[in-house]
Amino acid sequence: MKKLIGTLAALALTALAFGQKQHPCLLLTPEGVAEMRAALGTNADFDASVAEVFAEADRALNEEIVVPVPQDGGGGYTHEKHKDNYYVMYYCGIAWQLTGKEVYAQKVVDILDAYAELYPSLGFHPVTLSKTPGRIFWQTLNECVWLVHTSIAYDCVYDYIAPEKREKLEREFFRPYADFVMDGTKENPANNRTFNLMHNHGTWATAAVGMIGMVMGDDDYVDKALYGSDKTGTNGGFIMQLDNLLSPDGYYTEGAYYLRYAIWPMMLFAQCIDNNLPEVKIFGYRDAILSKAVGALTQLNYNGVFMKFNDALTKQLDCQELIFAVDIAYNAYGNPMLLDVAQTYQKKFIPCDAGYAVARDIAAGKSEPIKYTSKMYGDGADGKQGGIGVIRSTRPDVNSALTLKATSHGLSHGHYDKLVISYYDNDNVVLPDYGASRFLNIEAKYKGHYTRENKTFAMQTIAHNTVAVDGKSHFNGNYKVSSEHHSDIYYFEAGDKASIISAKENAAAEGVKMHRTVIYDDVEWLQYPMILDVFRLESDKEHIYDLPFYYNGHMVSLNFPYTKALTSMSTLGVANGYQYLWVEAEGRNEQSATTCFTFLQADRFYSISTATTPATEMKMVRIGANDPDFNLRPDGGYLLRQKAANHTFVSTIESHGVYNLQVEKTANAKASVKEVVVLLDNEQYTIVRVDFVGGQSRTYCLSNLTTEGAHKVKAEGKTYKWNGAWAVM
Amino acid sequence: MKKLIGTLAALALTALAFGQKQHPCLLLTPEGVAEMRAALGTNADFDASVAEVFAEADRALNEEIVVPVPQDGGGGYTHEKHKDNYYVMYYCGIAWQLTGKEVYAQKVVDILDAYAELYPSLGFHPVTLSKTPGRIFWQTLNECVWLVHTSIAYDCVYDYIAPEKREKLEREFFRPYADFVMDGTKENPANNRTFNLMHNHGTWATAAVGMIGMVMGDDDYVDKALYGSDKTGTNGGFIMQLDNLLSPDGYYTEGAYYLRYAIWPMMLFAQCIDNNLPEVKIFGYRDAILSKAVGALTQLNYNGVFMKFNDALTKQLDCQELIFAVDIAYNAYGNPMLLDVAQTYQKKFIPCDAGYAVARDIAAGKSEPIKYTSKMYGDGADGKQGGIGVIRSTRPDVNSALTLKATSHGLSHGHYDKLVISYYDNDNVVLPDYGASRFLNIEAKYKGHYTRENKTFAMQTIAHNTVAVDGKSHFNGNYKVSSEHHSDIYYFEAGDKASIISAKENAAAEGVKMHRTVIYDDVEWLQYPMILDVFRLESDKEHIYDLPFYYNGHMVSLNFPYTKALTSMSTLGVANGYQYLWVEAEGRNEQSATTCFTFLQADRFYSISTATTPATEMKMVRIGANDPDFNLRPDGGYLLRQKAANHTFVSTIESHGVYNLQVEKTANAKASVKEVVVLLDNEQYTIVRVDFVGGQSRTYCLSNLTTEGAHKVKAEGKTYKWNGAWAVM
Repeated sequence: MKKLIGTLAALALTALAFGQKQHPCLLLTPEGVAEMRAALGTNADFDASVAEVFAEADRALNEEIVVPVPQDGGGGYTHEKHKDNYYVMYYCGIAWQLTGKEVYAQKVVDILDAYAELYPSLGFHPVTLSKTPGRIFWQTLNECVWLVHTSIAYDCVYDYIAPEKREKLEREFFRPYADFVMDGTKENPANNRTFNLMHNHGTWATAAVGMIGMVMGDDDYVDKALYGSDKTGTNGGFIMQLDNLLSPDGYYTEGAYYLRYAIWPMMLFAQCIDNNLPEVKIFGYRDAILSKAVGALTQLNYNGVFMKFNDALTKQLDCQELIFAVDIAYNAYGNPMLLDVAQTYQKKFIPCDAGYAVARDIAAGKSEPIKYTSKMYGDGADGKQGGIGVIRSTRPDVNSALTLKATSHGLSHGHYDKLVISYYDNDNVVLPDYGASRFLNIEAKYKGHYTRENKTFAMQTIAHNTVAVDGKSHFNGNYKVSSEHHSDIYYFEAGDKASIISAKENAAAEGVKMHRTVIYDDVEWLQYPMILDVFRLESDKEHIYDLPFYYNGHMVSLNFPYTKALTSMSTLGVANGYQYLWVEAEGRNEQSATTCFTFLQADRFYSISTATTPATEMKMVRIGANDPDFNLRPDGGYLLRQKAANHTFVSTIESHGVYNLQVEKTANAKASVKEVVVLLDNEQYTIVRVDFVGGQSRTYCLSNLTTEGAHKVKAEGKTYKWNGAWAVM
Repeated sequence: MKKLIGTLAALALTALAFGQKQHPCLLLTPEGVAEMRAALGTNADFDASVAEVFAEADRALNEEIVVPVPQDGGGGYTHEKHKDNYYVMYYCGIAWQLTGKEVYAQKVVDILDAYAELYPSLGFHPVTLSKTPGRIFWQTLNECVWLVHTSIAYDCVYDYIAPEKREKLEREFFRPYADFVMDGTKENPANNRTFNLMHNHGTWATAAVGMIGMVMGDDDYVDKALYGSDKTGTNGGFIMQLDNLLSPDGYYTEGAYYLRYAIWPMMLFAQCIDNNLPEVKIFGYRDAILSKAVGALTQLNYNGVFMKFNDALTKQLDCQELIFAVDIAYNAYGNPMLLDVAQTYQKKFIPCDAGYAVARDIAAGKSEPIKYTSKMYGDGADGKQGGIGVIRSTRPDVNSALTLKATSHGLSHGHYDKLVISYYDNDNVVLPDYGASRFLNIEAKYKGHYTRENKTFAMQTIAHNTVAVDGKSHFNGNYKVSSEHHSDIYYFEAGDKASIISAKENAAAEGVKMHRTVIYDDVEWLQYPMILDVFRLESDKEHIYDLPFYYNGHMVSLNFPYTKALTSMSTLGVANGYQYLWVEAEGRNEQSATTCFTFLQADRFYSISTATTPATEMKMVRIGANDPDFNLRPDGGYLLRQKAANHTFVSTIESHGVYNLQVEKTANAKASVKEVVVLLDNEQYTIVRVDFVGGQSRTYCLSNLTTEGAHKVKAEGKTYKWNGAWAVM
C-alpha cells in the first residue's frame, strides 16, 4: 500500500513537473481508481454499486445516441432524454476508468460530439416558464446539473481524447456552455445574477462552472466559481454561499428538503476543491460547516424520510443526493455514524474514491449506530434568526419526534407558518406538515412544477398546525414583509424525562403577540410520553384565532355532539387558503370544559384534549375544495376557533393504546387526560394543571417573560415555586 | 427416539387399560410435550414462541386475578378482562406442561375457581345487542371462544387437580356452561339453533362443547358436537358443517376473511378429534377438505393480507387464527409450502405438538416457497354456486392479482355485489373492495360492532366495482332474495401470457342480463400486463347503469374537461348507498370516443380507458356523505354512467410507468392505450380492438353464448375466426 502511494505520488509529481494537470481530478483520482480497481470483487456491497454503473453503461452502449432538439418541459421526452444522456456519460466515464475498456470512453466522446454539434444552433428553450431559461432544458438549473455530471464524465475520459480534439471541444462547446451558465446572454443576463446568488441554484451554477474549469485547467472559471464573478468573494461565489446559506448548526433556511438538494452540489464541488485546491481547506472551512450540514440532514428526518418544512416532497436518506453527501462527508470527516446511514438507509455507494471508502470501512466494521438527538437548529447565517426545535424520544420503546418551526421565511420556498408543530410517532407521521403541492415531472400535473395550489394553499398559514389570525396568513401572505422577519427561540431544553421548545412571534399577525411552548413529557403513569401544547395569543383587540391540527388516520370520536355535513358541504372561507377546506363537521362543547378529539392511526390511538369554553368552535375540515384539477391531497384536520383578544390554546396530545387486528386486541383506546385546567395565564406566567382519569394530576409552570430566576406564583389558592423558564410538578 | 415413543406408547396403553383418558389430549399430547421439552433451547424460533408463553404466564402470576361481573360490550373493560383471563389460563396451562412448575397450574385452578363461583349468579349479559346473548360476554360466540381456550387450559392441568375437585368443577361449572352454549335457556333457546347451524358461529359452538367433552371424557357432548343435538349428523354438528360450509375447492361462502375465522375452530377441533377419535379420520374427510380450506386461505391473500370479499377487515396471514390453522394443517398434511407461510408471514408457532413440528421442519430445511397460482374457487357445498376467479401474474417482475367475485350471497356477511372486480399490483391494492365498516372493539365506534353504515353503504352494490342498475342494489338489497340466487361462472382459463375470467348474473337486477369478462393480458409492447374489462348489460327496457371503479391513489388526469365541485358539494343520490357518495366532479367526454382516467399510486401509474359516447357520464366520487359519526373511510371512486337498454362497458386497465422521487425519475406516465373500439357487440359475440399510441393494435374476440366450437364473425369489414370462448389477436 505504502509503495503504491509512493509510486502514485511520484507519478503525480511527474505530471505536475510537466505542467500538466492529472486526470481524473474531480470525484475520482488516479489513486482512488487504483484502489477501487484493486478492490473489485472483494466488497459485495460496493461491487453491487459498481455493477449498476456497468449495467447502465452497457445498456447505453447498445442504444443509439439521441440528442434531440429541446422541446419539452420537466418530465417530457426531450427533458428526460437530455437527463438520461448526462447519466450515460457519467456512467460510461466511470466505467472507462474502472475497466479501461475503450468502448465506454468512446461513448462519452460520441455523445459530447453530438452535443457540440447541436449546441451552437440553440437559442433559448421553447418552454418559457423560467426567469432563467436554459437552452437544452427549460431552466438553467437543469443546465447546471447537466454540466456537473458531464464535467465528471469529461474528466474521466480527458486523457483518452487527443489534445487537439479536446481543445476544439472546449473552445466550441464547453466554454460557450459554461459562459452561458455563468453569465447568460447579453439580452438576458439573468443567469449571472443566479450565479452570484446566495441560493441553491447559485450553488449548482458555481459547482458546474468550477468543475468544468478544473477539468479544463482554467483558473478563471475556478476563481469565479469560488469567489464570484468579480472574484472578490464578497459579491458571490461558492465560499460566500457556504457563509450565507447555512446556519452555524448546518441548517439551511429553505428547510431539510432543500438542504438535501443544496448539499449535492456543495459536497460534490467541495470534493473537487479538496482534490484540486487542497490549500483552500474547504472541508475545514467555517468550523467544518459542511460536516454540520450533513449532520443536520441525517438528523432532520423521521425513519429516514426528511421532515417537511416549507416546500417539501417525500424524500428519503436514500435519495441520490444524500448518497453523494454521505459518502463524501464520511471520506472527509470520518464520522462513523455516517457509515450507519449508508448501511441502513442507502445500501448504495457513489462509484468513486469517497464511495469506496464508505463501503470499505463498513466492511471493516467501523460503523456506529446513528443516534437521533433532540436539538435546536438555529436559522440564518448567524444562527439567530429563530430556528427549528426537535425533540426525540429517549425511551427505546418509543420512536417519536416533535418539531417546532420558528424560523425566518425560507426564501422563495418558504411557507407562512410561524410556530408550527409536527409530530411523528410509531413509525408514522401523526400531525403532518402538508409540504409542497407538486407532482415532480408529471406533465399532466402543471407540467411537473409546483401547482398553483402550492402558493394559494400549501404555503398559507391555515394549511399548517399553527394559529391563523382573522382568516389571514402570517404577514398577510406578503413574501417581502415575511422575509424581513423571523421568529425567536425563547427557550429550548432537552432532558431524559421531559423536554421543551418555546418560541415567540410578534410580527406575523399585526397587533398579536404569539408564544408557543411545547413540552414533551414522559409522564410516569402513561403508556407513552404526552405533549403539552401551550399557544398564547395576546392582543389589544378581539381577533378570530384558528388553530388546526392536521392529522393522519381515522376520526374516532369527539366528546360532544357535533353537526356533520350530511347532504351538502361548503368551504371554511373564501381566501388565504381557507377556500380549500371543506367543513365536514362543526360544533361547540357545552358539556365539559375539556374537549377531546381521538383518532386512530395504524395500530395506535391519539387524543388531543383542549381547555375550551362553550364559545370555542370546533371544526373538522378536509382539504379539496376549490381545487379544480385534483392537485391537493384530501387530508383531514381538526380546527379550534376562538374569538378573543387574549387567548391561550392549551392542549395535551396523547399517544395511547393499541389496535391490533391480527390478535383482535384493542386496549387503552380512550384518552387518559380527563381535564386540562388553565390555573393562571397572564403576561408573566402560565400555569396548567392536567388531571388524569386515574386520579393523578400534573402541573406545568411556565415563565413567559424571563427564562431565568426564581418564581413564586399564586394560582387558585396554591403557591407554585420554581426556577427558570419552566417546571413540571 | 424410537425408545421414547415405545415408552410413551406403553404409558398410553397403561392409561387406557385402566379406563382412564390420558391428558393432555386436545392440542397437546404427552408424546408431544415430551418432544417439546426435549427440544427446548434447540430451535430459536420455536423457543421464541415458547418464551412468549412463559412471559404471558409470568406476567399473569404477578397479577391479581380479576373476574369481573360482566358489564361492557366488545372492547370494554369486562369484555377484554374475560378475554385476557382465558389467554392467561391457556398460557399458564401450557407453561405447566412445558415446565412442571406448579405455580402455573395453580393459577389456572384459581381462575377456574373464580369463574365457578361467579358463573352460577349470572343471567344474560346486560348488553342486549345480540340475538344469542351470552352471560360472560355480550354474545354467546365469545362465550364459545372462551370455552375453547379454557378447555385447552383445563386439559393441561387436568391431572394436577384432585378428582373430587374436578368432579365439582365440572358439575357446577363446565357442564352448565357447556349446556348453555349448546342449548341456551328455556326462555331463550337461540343458542341451540346456533349450535346446529351451518355457520361459523355453529363451528365455534360445536368445537367448544366437543373439546370440553373430550377433556371431561363425556361422549354425549362429543357426539352432539360431531353430529348435532340429535346425534344423527343430518341436522347439525361439526361433520355436517364441513360438508356444508366449504366448497369442494375449500372456499367458504362468507369470503376469505370469515374463512380465516371459521378455520380456527375447524382446525382446532379437527386436531382434537384426530387425537381423541382417530377412527373418524377427520383430516381425510371429504377428500381432505380441511387441507383445501387452508390452501384457499394461503392463496386468497395479496402479500399476506386477505383479499376482501363481503364483510372483511384488514387481516393477514400472521393473525393468530392462521398460525393455528397453518401449524395444524402442516402437521396433518405435510405440505411444505405451509412451512414457507409460517416462515415468511408468521414467524410464530402455537406452543403445541403441531407448532413444534412446523418449527422443527423449517429448521430441517423442508420448506418450499409458496406459489401463488391462478384458480377458480367454486362457491357452495357443491362448488356450483358461482365462485371467485383469481388471476395471478406469471412474470417474476410483476406482483399482481385480479379477482372477479361471482358467488352466492355469503350468508349474513354477504354484500350485494355480483360480478365485482378487485385489482392488486406493485404491493398495493389498486382497485379495492371496501370490505366492512367496523372498528373492532373500539367502543366509541358503535361499541366495536359493524357500524350502521356497514349495512347501508358497505354492503350495497354502489360501494363496489360492479354495475348498479337504476340506483338500486343487486336484488334490491333484499337478503332473502339474494340468498336464493348465485352468479354463474361462464369461463375460466389461466395461461402464461393471457388469462380470462367470465361470469354471468341474470337475477340481480330485474330484467337485466349481466355478463362480465376480464382478460389479463401480458401485451408484448407494454411495460406491465393490461386488463381488458368487458361488462355486458342486456335488457328490453332502458336503465341507468352505474359502474364505479374505486381506486387507491391520487387522481392525475381525465382526458376531457370536467366540472369540479369547488365551493359546495352534494351527494350522488339519496338511497341504496348512493347517499354516502359526494360528487367531487363530473362531465362528459365530447372530444374523443375513449375516455381515459389516470391515477398514481405509490411509484406507479394506472389508467382506465373506456369506450364512451358523449352520452356517457363520468363522475368522481368520494365516500363520506350522510355519515354522521365519521365511520366511513374517505376513499375515492371513478364512476361511469350510461342510460341505455343494452350497453357494454369496455375498459382497459393499465399499470404503467414509474414515479420515483428518490432519483426524481418519472417515466411512462401516460396511458399506452389510445383507443378502445367496440367492433361488434351482440348477444352472440363481442369483438373489441384496442389501439395503442405506438401504432399497434390488439383484438379480443369473445363468444358470449357458447364456450366451445369454431366461430367466424364479420365485423367492420373484417372476418374473425377462432375456437372456443375467446381469442386474442
